Amino acid sequence: MYAIEISEFGGPDVLRWVEHPDPEPGQGEVVIDVVASAVNRADVMQRQGNYPPPPGASEIPGLECSGRISAVGAGVSDWSVGDTVCALLAGGGYAEKVAVPAAQVMPIPEGVSLTDAGGLPEVACTVWSNLVVAGRLRSGETLLVHGGTGGIGTHAIQVGKALGARVLATAGSPERLQTCLDLGADVAIDYHDDLPAEVASATDDRGVDVILDNMGASGLQANLAALATGGRLVIIGLMGGAKTEINLASMLGRRLSIGATTLRGREVEGPDGKGAIVASTREEIWPLIGQGRVRPVIHEYVPVAEASRAHAALDAGGVVGKLILVVRDEDEVLRG
Amino acid sequence: MYAIEISEFGGPDVLRWVEHPDPEPGQGEVVIDVVASAVNRADVMQRQGNYPPPPGASEIPGLECSGRISAVGAGVSDWSVGDTVCALLAGGGYAEKVAVPAAQVMPIPEGVSLTDAGGLPEVACTVWSNLVVAGRLRSGETLLVHGGTGGIGTHAIQVGKALGARVLATAGSPERLQTCLDLGADVAIDYHDDLPAEVASATDDRGVDVILDNMGASGLQANLAALATGGRLVIIGLMGGAKTEINLASMLGRRLSIGATTLRGREVEGPDGKGAIVASTREEIWPLIGQGRVRPVIHEYVPVAEASRAHAALDAGGVVGKLILVVRDEDEVLRG
Repeated sequence: MYAIEISEFGGPDVLRWVEHPDPEPGQGEVVIDVVASAVNRADVMQRQGNYPPPPGASEIPGLECSGRISAVGAGVSDWSVGDTVCALLAGGGYAEKVAVPAAQVMPIPEGVSLTDAGGLPEVACTVWSNLVVAGRLRSGETLLVHGGTGGIGTHAIQVGKALGARVLATAGSPERLQTCLDLGADVAIDYHDDLPAEVASATDDRGVDVILDNMGASGLQANLAALATGGRLVIIGLMGGAKTEINLASMLGRRLSIGATTLRGREVEGPDGKGAIVASTREEIWPLIGQGRVRPVIHEYVPVAEASRAHAALDAGGVVGKLILVVRDEDEVLRG
Repeated sequence: MYAIEISEFGGPDVLRWVEHPDPEPGQGEVVIDVVASAVNRADVMQRQGNYPPPPGASEIPGLECSGRISAVGAGVSDWSVGDTVCALLAGGGYAEKVAVPAAQVMPIPEGVSLTDAGGLPEVACTVWSNLVVAGRLRSGETLLVHGGTGGIGTHAIQVGKALGARVLATAGSPERLQTCLDLGADVAIDYHDDLPAEVASATDDRGVDVILDNMGASGLQANLAALATGGRLVIIGLMGGAKTEINLASMLGRRLSIGATTLRGREVEGPDGKGAIVASTREEIWPLIGQGRVRPVIHEYVPVAEASRAHAALDAGGVVGKLILVVRDEDEVLRG
């Protein structure tokens, strides 16, 4: 098969579409003939040498894919050759074929094309595991989504609304603020403005109950100040650095919590494992997609051999939603 | 009635046993003729001027008491005059009488004297709300209790064991380490030693799942280093300061969370309110006390008029368990 190789760490042009050995399905795994994968911020960090794959994972980038199952390993009973599926991966999605534990495979949600589904698993599992599991977001609460026009952000705004939350979202330009509102956000906040003041004004000085943050250190103090009593800050990225000062007194007085999570390094098994997250995402988010209350937001379809162009676009900023990497024509796959 | 007044902020001798107006039961409140109260670290901070009572609370110190109900306000149906009870207070426990919302009143647990019950509500509600609600401690997990011989610590060790956790506890002298073991701790760690190394050695390098911490800033880095993947640090005191540096990358990689909570400032109502915490503490912890699996640990009984002596003892260190402030002879009260 062909796959994207990170020839050396560096800029987008280190990505090369080259020949690789075909993957074989291990115990409990399936092999998917990939129709589409998608670009995540973690892939950019991996390309730069700042996010090595977890032990045992493929060196090929790509944390999600869609396609058709072409082989089934021993011990797999839920899936059969020919099933069209999408999957959460520990790596290996930028390729013609990928092997993945069966517990990380999901059906294609109703109403979503096979190609578009290649950009769903990572955002859906990330949003579910952070908003609901880590952040314990409840209906009637207020959610603040940072980076509201990104892949995670566009999905989180919609899921927050579908779960019955009031949603505030941040973005950096008038057009993108409008995009947040079009996706259902109740309030859009320019991230150049004073966040705690804007949040106070939008919440009658109450603050928000849950914040989904991708910046880390640079936003920590403002985020804590923007939380309501009992509020939860969930950090899923450190684009603004990792080290900063913290004042625990402000947390104690208002009973705040900070959680930081990643999806990629989790085990497959266990109550906090990928299998459990995939299962609950499928149970809770897939119906919302099927009802049209949450829809994939796609910025552009890019042939996988041109992955470097997609990475350059993400590096440059301005991407709204997901960049889909197209590996095979879905019509050809569906014709069999 | 008589009650302890903080005549000015300062050392233990600012506490004076003086005449005060009797409290009247407001809507939804009862008045308790106090048999016993107990000293908490928060009382010391209040005496020093560092922990003002929440709005509407009594200026008299004392966050818990036991006694007999002598008056019942409008709208109270659960309790009657003559009931022997204990209660979680927002203040006012160092007194002959105190008014308290009925939702914060509990029966005396089976097998506990009326006097000893005066030192139970604050530790039991604190431990329950932090270990189980905030810390989400599950059976089979490992818990680290800092300050294992304090009022909270002696209770937390026992509750952790009763909930099916493996319990590590810290203390500062060989005698106190032995006390932790006598209370059921599986491992006792001298807090002068290297905490992450001692925890690693006691957990096969895995770390602990939940830490109950009363130090705050001074222990933050060591605590985060001592947590297992998915671990939760729950901060309930800032005896080691509030401001420090934090490295969010270490949290993200291992999916750690930090929660900081207090009990006193909570509302009575609501899912996170005192009433809900009192109700679940009574439901979950009272039976463990009734079964003898969790017992009150009492350092000394001190007449309430000598509260300054009890505060001096807490300031000096070396107190194991609770200092009970005796207001009335329980036998007289029980005779009616």
